[in-house]
Amino acid sequence: MKRLRSLPARRRRFVLGIDFGTLSARALLVDVDNGEKIAEAVGEYSHGVIEEHLPNDRKRLPPETALQHPADYLDAMAQAVRRVMREARVKPEQVQGIGTDFTSCTVLPTRADGTPLCFDKRWQKNPHAWVKLWKHHAAQPEADRINAVGAKRNEYFVRAYGGRYSSEWFFSKLLETANHAPEVYRAADRYIEAGDWIVWQLCGRERRCLSAAGFKAMWVYPRDGLASDKTDSLPFDYPSPAFLAALNPLLKNAVSEKVSGDLRRLGENAGGLTRAMAARLGLREGTPVAVGNIDAHVAVPACGVTTAGKLVMILGTSTCHLLLGDERQEVEGMCGVVQDGVVNGFWGYEAGQAGVGDLFAWYMAHGVPASVHAEAKKLRTTVYQLLEKRAAALKPGESGLLALDWWNGCRSVLMDSSLSGMLVGATLGTRPHEIYRALIEATAFGTRKIIEAFTSKGVIIDELYACGGLAQKNPLLLQIYSDVTGRPIRVAASEQTCALGAAMHGALAAGLYPDMEQASKKMVRPSTQTYQPNRLRKPVYDQLYAEYTRLHDTFGRAPNSPMKVLRRLRAKAFAQE
Amino acid sequence: MKRLRSLPARRRRFVLGIDFGTLSARALLVDVDNGEKIAEAVGEYSHGVIEEHLPNDRKRLPPETALQHPADYLDAMAQAVRRVMREARVKPEQVQGIGTDFTSCTVLPTRADGTPLCFDKRWQKNPHAWVKLWKHHAAQPEADRINAVGAKRNEYFVRAYGGRYSSEWFFSKLLETANHAPEVYRAADRYIEAGDWIVWQLCGRERRCLSAAGFKAMWVYPRDGLASDKTDSLPFDYPSPAFLAALNPLLKNAVSEKVSGDLRRLGENAGGLTRAMAARLGLREGTPVAVGNIDAHVAVPACGVTTAGKLVMILGTSTCHLLLGDERQEVEGMCGVVQDGVVNGFWGYEAGQAGVGDLFAWYMAHGVPASVHAEAKKLRTTVYQLLEKRAAALKPGESGLLALDWWNGCRSVLMDSSLSGMLVGATLGTRPHEIYRALIEATAFGTRKIIEAFTSKGVIIDELYACGGLAQKNPLLLQIYSDVTGRPIRVAASEQTCALGAAMHGALAAGLYPDMEQASKKMVRPSTQTYQPNRLRKPVYDQLYAEYTRLHDTFGRAPNSPMKVLRRLRAKAFAQE
Repeated sequence: MKRLRSLPARRRRFVLGIDFGTLSARALLVDVDNGEKIAEAVGEYSHGVIEEHLPNDRKRLPPETALQHPADYLDAMAQAVRRVMREARVKPEQVQGIGTDFTSCTVLPTRADGTPLCFDKRWQKNPHAWVKLWKHHAAQPEADRINAVGAKRNEYFVRAYGGRYSSEWFFSKLLETANHAPEVYRAADRYIEAGDWIVWQLCGRERRCLSAAGFKAMWVYPRDGLASDKTDSLPFDYPSPAFLAALNPLLKNAVSEKVSGDLRRLGENAGGLTRAMAARLGLREGTPVAVGNIDAHVAVPACGVTTAGKLVMILGTSTCHLLLGDERQEVEGMCGVVQDGVVNGFWGYEAGQAGVGDLFAWYMAHGVPASVHAEAKKLRTTVYQLLEKRAAALKPGESGLLALDWWNGCRSVLMDSSLSGMLVGATLGTRPHEIYRALIEATAFGTRKIIEAFTSKGVIIDELYACGGLAQKNPLLLQIYSDVTGRPIRVAASEQTCALGAAMHGALAAGLYPDMEQASKKMVRPSTQTYQPNRLRKPVYDQLYAEYTRLHDTFGRAPNSPMKVLRRLRAKAFAQE
Repeated sequence: MKRLRSLPARRRRFVLGIDFGTLSARALLVDVDNGEKIAEAVGEYSHGVIEEHLPNDRKRLPPETALQHPADYLDAMAQAVRRVMREARVKPEQVQGIGTDFTSCTVLPTRADGTPLCFDKRWQKNPHAWVKLWKHHAAQPEADRINAVGAKRNEYFVRAYGGRYSSEWFFSKLLETANHAPEVYRAADRYIEAGDWIVWQLCGRERRCLSAAGFKAMWVYPRDGLASDKTDSLPFDYPSPAFLAALNPLLKNAVSEKVSGDLRRLGENAGGLTRAMAARLGLREGTPVAVGNIDAHVAVPACGVTTAGKLVMILGTSTCHLLLGDERQEVEGMCGVVQDGVVNGFWGYEAGQAGVGDLFAWYMAHGVPASVHAEAKKLRTTVYQLLEKRAAALKPGESGLLALDWWNGCRSVLMDSSLSGMLVGATLGTRPHEIYRALIEATAFGTRKIIEAFTSKGVIIDELYACGGLAQKNPLLLQIYSDVTGRPIRVAASEQTCALGAAMHGALAAGLYPDMEQASKKMVRPSTQTYQPNRLRKPVYDQLYAEYTRLHDTFGRAPNSPMKVLRRLRAKAFAQE
């Protein structure tokens, strides 16, 4: 926790942003009139990610399982908020609004009053009663079924999600529960995004946000008029009972029975903080709470982006690309397009790269040789700095290397988790900093591919914005991205864009600004750093990108690509055991 | 130096093999009647490989230069032979014959009496006056020219060398001298393989061997009747003056003026040891000296292979494949086919893989992470053993990885040094021992490709023989080679097959055996270890090999393959400096 300023004046007004990540919750208190950061604090989740055993249970969980404990969210939030308030020394009544953001799609079953099913002794040994974290991947068979049935019935969602519904999303996880634990499915009164659940806990009302519904739960905005299957009549903008019943008869009325509810627009006031929660957090009862939102999405206004044509890259272990558009287009491999889904008044587009920071971390752990560690020690620098320095001295094309960035599958354009990483051009003279640069370049080419998927459909992208861990720490990466894409990149001024974005939603919920554009003008400091593309490097990168595209299409699009054959042989080898 | 036996009886008969490698000369004394090793010793070359500066000169040598000092050969030989004789405590007259083998194509210019030009003060600062070592690669432009002119004139050598004459070979190096140092070219009375030169030094007569002439200097065996361009008449079985003049007018009469001479068959007696050399080596004057031979080639009879259908793999930093055949066939990418070129009475075929041990050494140095070093230390084992153990536990296909083994270009089938290494199938779960195994498998697939290039032309291969460093040290590699090729592999009993093979040639020169088959029956101990292919693994390897072949053809055969584009971009990036 950092203290940035002495005691603020009594009449200053603040908003609180609470960012729920994968391992912890972060609270950020900012001045609502100028966006100044007053204090921030982090509370860790005691149980972290539950992958091997449920709490107090010895049974091994199935592979690809990733669960969480809902009590951790409340405890970590309370810890972080109380520390921020103590540190900032402001009065509870000076906090005018609260906004949150959450990982997504992270979901849980609850009773009618919002109590998580896993709090009940009867269900506590059933993994399906717990929170399924976004990266819970056990529902791939269910996602495959959803895509097959959806394609056959020509359901609208297939197009809305760029051709493929993910195993990480809402109905994949719900169908997994219905298939594997029908008793849990039946016992659940509600099935809800954790981001909506936390808002429920704060204000005592179930108020779901349309953003997660649109991006993860096949919900179609009424204005959009594109929902496919109206034959079952009914006012559902979620998928129809007929479609759901085709997946599993149990699911037929899932939407009306467990899901629907009051969908709210971003920045709306979901309700006032309950007395109990106010006491637990050390805040004032009745403080306005904004409807929930997706973590990466709130970063968009926190980068100062509230209009079309600016692509925001949240660069972390993976990269999330968000873009506002004036029109709806179907773009190959996008994760979704939702009216008012990111900033009200625009179509929100999402795309992503599955392995970015993760890929560099993999190389650092499993590819950087002992000799580089020894050299770094001798030169009194870090391995990372040594590689970065040497990689930065290379010219485009100089290493002779080219990589495909699919170490964690391809989440963009091709949307295929069976694709894998590839490096070509190695010689006996190839050195680690050359491989490191080739990996960075590969992710840059992947980003350019996403940009071109959008622009080829007429969705305009003029500028790039970067935020997240890598944006702050990796200048070489940003320069390469700028050179490869030929576009300037503005780095967000805030190091905590998610928590700041959540706070801005709190300001809207409190009625302190009429819309996100006005909030952004006051609360977001301008980017302090902009990377400009180097015109001399662009031509070489254009040639390398042409080769990247050839490899991308050869290995990624062919149904019998060597990558897919290798993946099948690998599965067979495992199955033999 | 190891002593293997107590003082031998006075009437035992011995032969001496001297193996001239890249960095040292090794002398091996064996019992001519049973092949028993009596003693061995190594003498290092004082100047090693001269790559940066000539001795006593500050001028930086051009890139890709690799020279040697001819005096080193004599000094190292004398040192090794004297140590062996001292250690073995046998009488000089008990040594019945001497055989040598040498790296090839390693060449030097000399005066008419055999004195190297670089011994002359006038020439000692000119790199072209020195020995050009086999791996001197500066003559690539000359090789390109030779191939272009050869193809245009439909010269026979183009077919004899599997489609391409190498920059490492005789006329590439000679043309480089004529182009860059015509004064050295003019001053040279003779231009000669170092292996033939050392025989000249031993017996005082220039007696060139037909093997190096056939494999490296475009010489065609008269019986073969295939020499192309007889229009210039003349009894040359070397390339015609017209062809040579087309390369450079200076070269027109190179063969008659500097090269030709008395070509001799393998195992012939080139002459008796001179008095001076006998004194220097501590041997008897007049001891028969065999004509020279190529280092890898003498390993063939030393593995016990003197008949057709057995492929000998000399597994070292690179791999040399040698095969005897009853007929002459043109095989894609072979390095050469020469009547009587390896064992008299057979067509000798040569092929090779450019990076094998080198590739594993590259991975050990530049790819194995610090974490594996730490683990090995903790487990009190070596990094190599740890990787080997873990890699051995993997099933074929289990890693999901596949590599193309072209880290040092492709010397077999495709014969293209602009090709490069490639790894496909990597994920965030990929670990170093999986990459290590994928690299071994890649070299096994490369060997299978060579085998199939021969067998598809009707050249029979029944069994594989392995010798060289990796054959002794790497059981996992041999098992994988056996599984991938579906053939048993016999490992040579001798750890010094080259020196043993040289000694066997000495026995032939001394008239102790009528031919190599008889010598082999007595002097070669049977293989003590045979690897048998695992029938269960073959089907998976067949599938992986099918993918290897797709990648091989996609990346290796297309004139505009990404590998070739990357190589051109790399050259451009360097040229900008």
